[in-house]
Amino acid sequence: MMVQVISSVNEACVAKFHHRTAIVIDVLRATSTIATALSSGASSVIPAETVMDAKALQRPGDLLGGERFCRKISGFDYGNSPAEYAADAVKGRRVILTTTNGTRAIHKSTRAEHVLAASLLNAEACAKLALELRRDIVIMCAGSHDEFAIEDGLCAGMLLHHMRCLNGGAGIETDDFGVAMESLYAERRHRIEELLMNSASGKRLLKLGQKQDIEFCARTNTIREVPYLSGDQLVLRS
Amino acid sequence: MMVQVISSVNEACVAKFHHRTAIVIDVLRATSTIATALSSGASSVIPAETVMDAKALQRPGDLLGGERFCRKISGFDYGNSPAEYAADAVKGRRVILTTTNGTRAIHKSTRAEHVLAASLLNAEACAKLALELRRDIVIMCAGSHDEFAIEDGLCAGMLLHHMRCLNGGAGIETDDFGVAMESLYAERRHRIEELLMNSASGKRLLKLGQKQDIEFCARTNTIREVPYLSGDQLVLRS
Repeated sequence: MMVQVISSVNEACVAKFHHRTAIVIDVLRATSTIATALSSGASSVIPAETVMDAKALQRPGDLLGGERFCRKISGFDYGNSPAEYAADAVKGRRVILTTTNGTRAIHKSTRAEHVLAASLLNAEACAKLALELRRDIVIMCAGSHDEFAIEDGLCAGMLLHHMRCLNGGAGIETDDFGVAMESLYAERRHRIEELLMNSASGKRLLKLGQKQDIEFCARTNTIREVPYLSGDQLVLRS
Repeated sequence: MMVQVISSVNEACVAKFHHRTAIVIDVLRATSTIATALSSGASSVIPAETVMDAKALQRPGDLLGGERFCRKISGFDYGNSPAEYAADAVKGRRVILTTTNGTRAIHKSTRAEHVLAASLLNAEACAKLALELRRDIVIMCAGSHDEFAIEDGLCAGMLLHHMRCLNGGAGIETDDFGVAMESLYAERRHRIEELLMNSASGKRLLKLGQKQDIEFCARTNTIREVPYLSGDQLVLRS
């Protein structure tokens, strides 16, 4: 099974997704938020590309969530802090979510046969499901400000690590970028929170007083389920 | 001092080079070949973008070198194997060199204040000279086939490692991609030849029977001097 790793949304081209399973990563914070919302009981999360799209999609009872420039959007119910979605408030509700990088990355990958959302919170479960789907895999690091984001690369390395563990090390091939991300994970796996705090995205969040978001997103394998794109909605799949 | 790392030629934009020192890396094989040719006594190496340009630049006594699809160009004196340039044959001669990625990367970086060519062979010397030049630094990994090449990323990590050692660890800042390449180097520094053999570029060279080139390019810090772009020629600087 071939596992390609794309370093940021900008590097993604549609042809890479055909007949593949796409795994989208935006550790800080969209895919961490999506996994948290669904595991807290939200019925689904709908990724919207723009604020206008999000508002247009809203039906009675739906929650609007998301950020621009790392801040909650005016008039929305929630921002993009996963902790906001951990509460009972989301139970049974649809969440319409629009973020700068993560939801755009999900839209970019819709040509894939399957689309999963991965974060450090649910990396092992994602790796397991992706193997079970038996397609070649494209891991897309969303990145930030059109650049590589190290926390997404770390998560890509973690996914590859779990795929190799689950597969007894056999049959997983990756590209040069994937190998580099595996080394990054191997070298930093015991200092993940420190890496996130020192990342470009982490520093931006720290400046905005959102240290607790970084701590939250740095947890590993606390969620055993996977956001899976079904039509235009992400739903939980284990 | 800020050290940015660019993952492949495609990611380079001119604005990133202004007032900076650029360090261009194409471990397999252009910058390894350039360092070898100059340290073997070639008077200069002129990077040419095309085969036509190379031929037009040739004056009596000059050597023509380079590759297309990893093979020597018809009618040229040498290919792109560094070992070809280790002989007395190059002593006192100008070498006109055209390669698929490395010479293109050098041309892309000419807006920089200073341009150096780095490889594993001379990484420590490059790091030292770049610090002495007292400008912010852009490390450009040439990559291969418009994609990231892990051997170039490893060399970027090695450069950062040496910069930190030389500077007593102080004053060197890098971006997320640079941090990831430092981890790659830290994790793989004792298995460099194995990494090169298993890289995409390495596998292509192995198929063409050029294993000895990979072994040659995997040596570290055997050359204490640096190819430095002066006008349109690379000359030796220590």
